[in-house]
Amino acid sequence: MKLTILFGGASFEHEISIVSAITIKEKLASFDLSFVFCDGDHKFYLIDEKKMKSTTFSTKEHKKMPELTLVNNGFAQKSLFGSTLHTNPILNLIHGGDGEDGTIASLLDFFDIKYIGPRKEACTFSYDKRYTKYLCDAIGVKSVAYKVFHKNEAANLGLSIPVIVKPASLGSSIGVSIVKDESEFDYALDTAFEYDDAVLVEPFIEGVKEYNLAGYMINDKIHFSIVEEPQKEEFLDFEKKYMDFSRSEQVSRADIDEELTNKLKSSFEKVYRGMFEGALIRCDFFVVKGEVLLNEINPIPGSMANYLFKDFEQVIRELSSALPDAKRVKVSYEYIDSISSAKGK
Amino acid sequence: MKLTILFGGASFEHEISIVSAITIKEKLASFDLSFVFCDGDHKFYLIDEKKMKSTTFSTKEHKKMPELTLVNNGFAQKSLFGSTLHTNPILNLIHGGDGEDGTIASLLDFFDIKYIGPRKEACTFSYDKRYTKYLCDAIGVKSVAYKVFHKNEAANLGLSIPVIVKPASLGSSIGVSIVKDESEFDYALDTAFEYDDAVLVEPFIEGVKEYNLAGYMINDKIHFSIVEEPQKEEFLDFEKKYMDFSRSEQVSRADIDEELTNKLKSSFEKVYRGMFEGALIRCDFFVVKGEVLLNEINPIPGSMANYLFKDFEQVIRELSSALPDAKRVKVSYEYIDSISSAKGK
Repeated sequence: MKLTILFGGASFEHEISIVSAITIKEKLASFDLSFVFCDGDHKFYLIDEKKMKSTTFSTKEHKKMPELTLVNNGFAQKSLFGSTLHTNPILNLIHGGDGEDGTIASLLDFFDIKYIGPRKEACTFSYDKRYTKYLCDAIGVKSVAYKVFHKNEAANLGLSIPVIVKPASLGSSIGVSIVKDESEFDYALDTAFEYDDAVLVEPFIEGVKEYNLAGYMINDKIHFSIVEEPQKEEFLDFEKKYMDFSRSEQVSRADIDEELTNKLKSSFEKVYRGMFEGALIRCDFFVVKGEVLLNEINPIPGSMANYLFKDFEQVIRELSSALPDAKRVKVSYEYIDSISSAKGK
Repeated sequence: MKLTILFGGASFEHEISIVSAITIKEKLASFDLSFVFCDGDHKFYLIDEKKMKSTTFSTKEHKKMPELTLVNNGFAQKSLFGSTLHTNPILNLIHGGDGEDGTIASLLDFFDIKYIGPRKEACTFSYDKRYTKYLCDAIGVKSVAYKVFHKNEAANLGLSIPVIVKPASLGSSIGVSIVKDESEFDYALDTAFEYDDAVLVEPFIEGVKEYNLAGYMINDKIHFSIVEEPQKEEFLDFEKKYMDFSRSEQVSRADIDEELTNKLKSSFEKVYRGMFEGALIRCDFFVVKGEVLLNEINPIPGSMANYLFKDFEQVIRELSSALPDAKRVKVSYEYIDSISSAKGK
């Protein structure tokens, strides 16, 4: 089947999006794929499949390839004799800014292009960790306690250490620190403020059990991946995360009982339903004393969490066949017409 | 000063956006204005100022005017000999879908164009009334109690009548009913479901005091309009609202004491700060037994609530001079470069 992988984006996660796209190319080997790259200048290029390697982009070789522009129903490629329209459904694989913050979703919806990925509201609630907390509180999903700090405001920790300090709106552990001594707090805060004007501080729970679960919805039914217990260090720094985004080997199922599995699935479903339709998301959970806490929603997980599914090609095939419509409203001139006719014009 | 009024949009409020734009043209008479119309097919047109009347659009005469496309830093207008770039700051005056749901904000930010209007996250929290409730709960602003109903789910009212039934995500009273007898509830629900898959039901508080307050932020300080007590019928139906969007005469200040004025301002500021920067918004409040409840956030109020400000031109001048940047992240290839060099490539 035909599918266009959209990757890149002007974000701190630009490079890992490239890694993700290269991994997905391997994992969807039987698909008829094409590749559209969004560069740091927000220009789109059609990338030759044979050139899908990281140095194509770091050396800017992509700039010699055909430029594309967004138009109604697809990406247009100009040629001497007119224009070709690329109308494949899109897999939005732009991690972080642009891709996960609602920008790309808005662009694709505006131009009436179908895509796998979170819609704009879903992006708002998953990209900024503060808003994930708002969502959790509203729908009754438990999450870790937190405190928000704002740039240029007096900062009084007011939580017992150790704590974890995170920019509100980035993924991939960028700008994240664990503070084990209060003297390190200001530095951790400054580091996080380099990436965002708002910073979340949460208690750091040592030795916490962590479980990841991915899924998507078809015909009103959630299809779950296996539950994984990620083999992590304290937390992944950017370089390790970078490698993490190129994962392609299926992992083994976490050794947990049915009750816990069901609790994780139930939390996932509460988060997903009515919000993430059209997307394959991964939710990362903590389990503390038998209680399931949502840690993070990844609405475009690294290499689409392919390693959590037995038949990843089938997953993407199913998801592509059940994508939401952009539902463009038909405009009417009923009132203008009635006023004009009343005026006798 | 130069400013481009962006109006239209593929939404149920398409017509009232046209009315708003015509009103704004009068109210910003000393400005060097240009007009960009987004039609129901999501195409942009540069509208001749002299043709800024409602029949230009209902008769589709606009289609003979120059078509524009979004490119980095502005709207491009093709000509025989190349292309002109229109780079004015934008006033986003697209009410309802497209304009208030985050789509236009995303487009303008993506193409690095400055604009007056809500950013995409602010749109998520104001366009869908459910998410306004999430926001209120999270930031400690009181609002009216509510219950959400979903399409194709069994509906049990579970609230005492009278109630008001609203589609979750529309403005301008479209699809809204007041239910005074339980037998009318199913019909009201069906009416609202024509516009949205989610519907909010709230107690309808008879004889409630209603106050509107608009404002915007410059240099970290909120500038407030006067407080208005809208002279309303039970609620505005679409036709009356349509007329409401063409308001241009300054209204008189509500007859309320300083304590209540300050309570309204304090709620407004909690809502605005950290969310609506770059926008002039109007918050509509109820006052019940001395308690201030937020009813609705209008992130692009009809004709920009010009009638609540003494010197509306000065307001827009100030706001234009203090617009947020899109903050495009500069991409780096640090990790790809380090991996490539490790591989000796």
